[in-house]
Amino acid sequence: MNSSRRYTLTLSCPDRVGIVAAVSGFFARHGGWIVEASYHADEATGRFFMRQEILADSLPFTLEEMCEKFAAVAQEFGMQWQVQDSARKMRLVVLVSKQDHCLNDLLHRWRSGELEVDIPCVISNHEDLRSFVEWHGIPYHHVPMEDKAEAFAKIEKLYVQYDGDTMVLARFMQILPPELCRKFAGHVINIHHSFLPSFMGAKPYHQAFERGVKLIGATCHYVTADLDAGPIIEQDIVRIDHGDTVDDMVRYGRDIEKTVLARGLRYHVESRVLICENKTVVFK
Amino acid sequence: MNSSRRYTLTLSCPDRVGIVAAVSGFFARHGGWIVEASYHADEATGRFFMRQEILADSLPFTLEEMCEKFAAVAQEFGMQWQVQDSARKMRLVVLVSKQDHCLNDLLHRWRSGELEVDIPCVISNHEDLRSFVEWHGIPYHHVPMEDKAEAFAKIEKLYVQYDGDTMVLARFMQILPPELCRKFAGHVINIHHSFLPSFMGAKPYHQAFERGVKLIGATCHYVTADLDAGPIIEQDIVRIDHGDTVDDMVRYGRDIEKTVLARGLRYHVESRVLICENKTVVFK
Amino acid sequence: MNSSRRYTLTLSCPDRVGIVAAVSGFFARHGGWIVEASYHADEATGRFFMRQEILADSLPFTLEEMCEKFAAVAQEFGMQWQVQDSARKMRLVVLVSKQDHCLNDLLHRWRSGELEVDIPCVISNHEDLRSFVEWHGIPYHHVPMEDKAEAFAKIEKLYVQYDGDTMVLARFMQILPPELCRKFAGHVINIHHSFLPSFMGAKPYHQAFERGVKLIGATCHYVTADLDAGPIIEQDIVRIDHGDTVDDMVRYGRDIEKTVLARGLRYHVESRVLICENKTVVFK
Amino acid sequence: MNSSRRYTLTLSCPDRVGIVAAVSGFFARHGGWIVEASYHADEATGRFFMRQEILADSLPFTLEEMCEKFAAVAQEFGMQWQVQDSARKMRLVVLVSKQDHCLNDLLHRWRSGELEVDIPCVISNHEDLRSFVEWHGIPYHHVPMEDKAEAFAKIEKLYVQYDGDTMVLARFMQILPPELCRKFAGHVINIHHSFLPSFMGAKPYHQAFERGVKLIGATCHYVTADLDAGPIIEQDIVRIDHGDTVDDMVRYGRDIEKTVLARGLRYHVESRVLICENKTVVFK
Repeated sequence: MNSSRRYTLTLSCPDRVGIVAAVSGFFARHGGWIVEASYHADEATGRFFMRQEILADSLPFTLEEMCEKFAAVAQEFGMQWQVQDSARKMRLVVLVSKQDHCLNDLLHRWRSGELEVDIPCVISNHEDLRSFVEWHGIPYHHVPMEDKAEAFAKIEKLYVQYDGDTMVLARFMQILPPELCRKFAGHVINIHHSFLPSFMGAKPYHQAFERGVKLIGATCHYVTADLDAGPIIEQDIVRIDHGDTVDDMVRYGRDIEKTVLARGLRYHVESRVLICENKTVVFK
Repeated sequence: MNSSRRYTLTLSCPDRVGIVAAVSGFFARHGGWIVEASYHADEATGRFFMRQEILADSLPFTLEEMCEKFAAVAQEFGMQWQVQDSARKMRLVVLVSKQDHCLNDLLHRWRSGELEVDIPCVISNHEDLRSFVEWHGIPYHHVPMEDKAEAFAKIEKLYVQYDGDTMVLARFMQILPPELCRKFAGHVINIHHSFLPSFMGAKPYHQAFERGVKLIGATCHYVTADLDAGPIIEQDIVRIDHGDTVDDMVRYGRDIEKTVLARGLRYHVESRVLICENKTVVFK
Repeated sequence: MNSSRRYTLTLSCPDRVGIVAAVSGFFARHGGWIVEASYHADEATGRFFMRQEILADSLPFTLEEMCEKFAAVAQEFGMQWQVQDSARKMRLVVLVSKQDHCLNDLLHRWRSGELEVDIPCVISNHEDLRSFVEWHGIPYHHVPMEDKAEAFAKIEKLYVQYDGDTMVLARFMQILPPELCRKFAGHVINIHHSFLPSFMGAKPYHQAFERGVKLIGATCHYVTADLDAGPIIEQDIVRIDHGDTVDDMVRYGRDIEKTVLARGLRYHVESRVLICENKTVVFK
Repeated sequence: MNSSRRYTLTLSCPDRVGIVAAVSGFFARHGGWIVEASYHADEATGRFFMRQEILADSLPFTLEEMCEKFAAVAQEFGMQWQVQDSARKMRLVVLVSKQDHCLNDLLHRWRSGELEVDIPCVISNHEDLRSFVEWHGIPYHHVPMEDKAEAFAKIEKLYVQYDGDTMVLARFMQILPPELCRKFAGHVINIHHSFLPSFMGAKPYHQAFERGVKLIGATCHYVTADLDAGPIIEQDIVRIDHGDTVDDMVRYGRDIEKTVLARGLRYHVESRVLICENKTVVFK
């Protein structure tokens, strides 16, 4: 964790010889100091994925100039690419319902400086968590869910007004309309309280209890129009046994949910997650 | 792990006040030294489960006399019960195909004395593992699968001839006929190479790869007529990432499969597993 | 997790035949409904440990009467015993320094009702966390550490005034005087940020970094006069690699510290931890 | 896991701008297809570490020519470097005592083709495992330990005669003389049955039992003249509780030992481990 300014370049392109040489050569020619570099060649799709973290001060030009110059390299290889500037914090709009364990965890990571993001607002379909959120100096918007179409229109409007980069469904418990999922593909992150693809949909801990599994889990994933079927970013599990009731599972599950969401979100915020069809490449 | 002779009593009955007092009182009256005691009250079914391990030498009578006397207690509470005598080793008939990682692991645990069982024979639908099995002094039976009905009739016959207590499907890769599953319910143990209920059926690692999960697992369960849907005894997982191919998963999976099978089998062999409808109570 | 009133009896005594029968017989005679029962015979010390959770309403007498009657059983077997009444919440006095990840985690578990305790006050050698604690309606006492003797005298006084049952050192970063450790033996719980006995004392993550370990951990233990050498209640670890700096370890470590403290504290609060010389019996 | 021939280049040098560009540029100019690339900049030492896996067939010259040409790049950056050719299998000389769980595990991975190495011989200070080793067609040498100096002279001679690349102490239970450790630094791998640095030296499970830890572990490390203090390659742990005896720990420990040794050995065999003073960089 170095606090100096960094540019993080992420890209994908058809795989062939010379990509790394071209990209690292580009930065080396300009004295660019690469602090982290990761690659992945995906056999199934034939695409190459790459992430480079460069010290901004090591380069002799501005971000705009860098992008202008790099465009030539990118074009040669047919790259899809973007650069994240650590000087501009990602803006997370957090959606919650009544359960606050994930929210409590995220806000602590935010206020302690561990998670370097802005949280311009929190949106909820209930009033319950207002006081806690406002204690942090963060605006709280109550959007009732009686009329779902209206509610989601309002949520989208708030997200845009607050200049959100990512919507975080921190146990929001509401299904987003498909068109919203499509519009913000790769920008909506959910935490599902099961080890997907097991136990999709409602009441996963009840489903797990009925099946008699010996481990339960949680999954952080990008939201798509297919419920609980989007690209998985992170998962983890906890051991249970025959003595555990559904309530015990819910309790254990909370710890897994907040950890998995925090890890997944961190990868996303640091541009470590690249989407490859319905899967993810996560450069840890 | 004490090597002195033990009786292990397992039972289940409708839950009510006084069961533990009656059972422990019975043994205390006769000076019985209980070395391990476990209980579970299952809320959903209203049944009580119990396991007691008693030093044989601490009792003033034989196993037969003990059972005779205990029958009165059992009747009072409507118990289903059985006693396992550590002096009689459980007899495992192991079924394999070509992959030998589970077999190699089991045979090592057996020959090192860690798993205190008899393995009267190994049955396979291939010849490949004969030499390795026979080096251990264990008979090897090759039962080709061309005619499945005939093959399973032969397998059942061998199992009965060798006086098997439990059939272990150590990556056998063949689906048992439903009537065999029913006939030997609670006596056939399988290792499935996924974290059930995810990825039932064939090629679970391919399914896991397609879905892009971040953890893969294995499940040890009792075989029932419903494929991969029987009572789960034990599960575990291993972390993977985007760089892992199906072959890598198969490799990681082998380590999980053998560990999960070994643990599940150990619980079964020590009478630690009680079946409760389609779930298990495992007294570790 | 049943919310009905329970008595939790914990005891230890020299091991012999008939203890379980005597105790379960005592409750059975009075119609006592035992919801959880655990035992452990410690070979090294020859002592027997036991924990019973009984539904209060199933007994025909008050807690006082129960204790009076049970005293006869206890005397016969030379038992050390105590009964916890779920109607009286345990009172935790929490000590913190500047780092608030454990505090934030504990207060959330408390305000969500997951951890059923009272937190009569929080004590700190810094002012930093006052606002957050007071938002919860919990008194906050700032006790500067310039004069350690005076400071610890004040802490002891506050602990007594607030009728504390347990002192929780939630990353307090100060060493308690030996006489305080002795006086409140079994009532002071610490979270140490290493996998003890590795890396005792100061800066364990720096020590771990220097040694090049591949896993780091945290340990929840009772405080004794020997620094970081008291009975261990709970431990856990997280995987690291060569790319992780000390700062990364500190960050990963926070997640383990709060989880391990929360688990250890829960066991303690539910009377699941019995001390056996310098070790613990933890009935999960 | 591709079976086509590969060259694996590993190197370290003082960190500066342009290393990756120079190396990847070198390969790109010659059409070299890089299938895996990993980097690490070590802050403490200021050194840069790198591993590249290149498809042999993608290069227009032989290994010798490649090395000749690459030498210029290496010299410019002051690199320590070596190239491993997948066409030449690493030769592991395995040393064992009486316990065979690690040996059984290694030999299975070898005969199933999972671990692509040659095992030219097994050396032991006991006769016990001869038959099992010889069944594999591997020579077995019994070297009694009565005269340690003589014994280790014999072991060294065998290692050299059999053209060994690495000595694997698979629970050998004998301390290597310091001069042997120095002579073959980086070429002797041990599995220690504790989570180092806890419980160095003899009887670690007894030490763990005495201390009352809640997790036990195993450590795979390079052997140095300092007992159990060499660079750590891999570690793992397993959960235990108060009910586990030393014998139980030994049993659980075996599973961890063989897994940790197998993983560490795999990293070593695939040239994924680079030593950095008393620590390792492991490119998984």
